[in-house]
Amino acid sequence: MSANKKARTHPPYELLYWPGIPGRGEFIRLVFEAAGVSYKDPANETKDAGGMDIVASLTNPESVGEDGNPPVFAPPALKVPGEGKNGGALLIYQTPAILSYLGEKLDLAGTDEAEKMFILSHTLTALDLNNEAHDTHHPIAVSKYYEDQREEALKKATDFRENRIPKFFGFFERVLKGNEEGGKGKFLVGDKLSYADTTLWHVLSGLEWAFPSELDFRKQDYPLLFGSFYDNVAQTPGIKEYLASERRLRFSMGVYRNYPELDRP
Amino acid sequence: MSANKKARTHPPYELLYWPGIPGRGEFIRLVFEAAGVSYKDPANETKDAGGMDIVASLTNPESVGEDGNPPVFAPPALKVPGEGKNGGALLIYQTPAILSYLGEKLDLAGTDEAEKMFILSHTLTALDLNNEAHDTHHPIAVSKYYEDQREEALKKATDFRENRIPKFFGFFERVLKGNEEGGKGKFLVGDKLSYADTTLWHVLSGLEWAFPSELDFRKQDYPLLFGSFYDNVAQTPGIKEYLASERRLRFSMGVYRNYPELDRP
Repeated sequence: MSANKKARTHPPYELLYWPGIPGRGEFIRLVFEAAGVSYKDPANETKDAGGMDIVASLTNPESVGEDGNPPVFAPPALKVPGEGKNGGALLIYQTPAILSYLGEKLDLAGTDEAEKMFILSHTLTALDLNNEAHDTHHPIAVSKYYEDQREEALKKATDFRENRIPKFFGFFERVLKGNEEGGKGKFLVGDKLSYADTTLWHVLSGLEWAFPSELDFRKQDYPLLFGSFYDNVAQTPGIKEYLASERRLRFSMGVYRNYPELDRP
Repeated sequence: MSANKKARTHPPYELLYWPGIPGRGEFIRLVFEAAGVSYKDPANETKDAGGMDIVASLTNPESVGEDGNPPVFAPPALKVPGEGKNGGALLIYQTPAILSYLGEKLDLAGTDEAEKMFILSHTLTALDLNNEAHDTHHPIAVSKYYEDQREEALKKATDFRENRIPKFFGFFERVLKGNEEGGKGKFLVGDKLSYADTTLWHVLSGLEWAFPSELDFRKQDYPLLFGSFYDNVAQTPGIKEYLASERRLRFSMGVYRNYPELDRP
C-alpha cells in the first residue's frame, strides 16, 4: 500500500479486484502509485480466502445493485465513499471508466479538453492491446482451460505477434513522435505523465514477460517507445518505488502468461 | 442525414468511418439522431470510391497526427471544427471516447457525476459484447477471411451463444431492474435516454440480425431488456425516424454477420 501522502485530501479509495495477480486491477494501482495517493486493496489485504469472497460478492449474479449504484459486470471496481447517490459510496466498474474518473481527480488526465480526450483514446487503445494479449491464450472461451484451446491459441498468438503487435507498437511510436516537442518521447500526450502512459507501460511490461523473444526482436524498431518512454515511466517517482516494492504483484496466470510455445520460435 | 435541427448551436460535427456498413460508426450516428443534431458522414456522402479514400487517409500508417491532434489508430473518428489545439479542428478516435464527448455536449450523459460514470461503464460493457460478437466470425485473425477460420468460429460462436450472451443479457436485465423506479425498464440509468441506451440497443439489434434463432430462444428470459427497453429506444423521437429512413445502413458483412451455421441449430 502506498504511503499516506495526500490521503487527507482524498476519500479513502477502495480497489475491488481479484487477489494475487496484477490483472486489470494493476492499471488502477499504477494511477494511485503515480499520484502518491493511498488506497485500499481489500482482496490482497485479506490473508485467508476472504479475498476471493470480497470480489465474488461484488459480482453476485443475482444483484441489481445497491445504494443507488448499478450491479457490476466484472472487476475491477472502485468504491468512493461519500461520492455516490444520496451521500453513499459511489461504485464504478470498467477499467477505462475508473481510470477516466481517477485521472480527473488525481491530475493525470491532461491540461485541457483536447488532451483529456486524447488520453482517454490512447488508454482505450492500450487496453485493446491488453485484451488481444489475453485472447492469445484464450481465443475460444474464457470459461475453458488453455489446454483445451491450445491449437487455436497457437494460431491466434502467431497472428498477434506478426500483425497486431507491430500495428499497435507502430501506432504508439507515431503518437510519441507527433508529441515529441512537448513530450520529449516520454509522454504520449502533453508534457506530463497521464494515465495513458501508465496504462500503456503496464501493457508493454506484460508483453515483455509473456513474449520475451518476440519483444527482444521487435524493440529496436520502436526507439521512442522502448527507449525514452518505457524507461521514463518506470523511473517516475511513485512508480519507481512501487515497482521495487513487495506490493507489486508478479505476473503469473492472469492476462499475461508465459507459455513459451506462444512466443516467437 | 438528419434535419438541421439545432445545427446552429453546435459545430458541424463530422463522423469519419468506413462507408456502406453500420459498424462502429453506428453508435455515433445514433447519438446524433437521438439528439436531433445534424452531422456530416463524408464517406457515405461520396458517391464514388472516394468514401474509402477519406477513411484510408485518416489511418495513414505513416501519420504522426496533425493540427495538434495525435494519429488515429482506427475509425471511427470525430472531427469537431474549432475545438482543437490553437483553434483548429479536434479529432477524437475510439468509440467510447467519442460517445463520452458527444454525450456531454448533447445532453445524453446523465444528470450528475455518478450517472455519468454509470453511463460510461454500461456503454463499455455493451461495446465489449459488440467486440465478442465480432470475434465469433473472426476468432483467430482480423486480417484473414472468415472461411479461413470457420472451424474456430464454430467453437467460438457456440461459447458466445451458450455462455456469453446469457451473461451479458442477464447483467443488463439486472441493471434495468435496479433502475426500475426511475427508468421504468426503459432506461439503463436515471429517467432519460443516454448514449448507453442507444449503444446497447444497437448491439441487441445486431445480435437479432446475426443470431435470429438464438435470440428467439433467449428473449423471453429478459422481459425488461426485450420488452420495455428495446422497444422504447426504437420508439424514441429521432431514433424512430432514423430507423425508418434510408439513411440507416443495413447489416451485411461488418461487425454483425448472418452466418446460419454460427446461430443456434
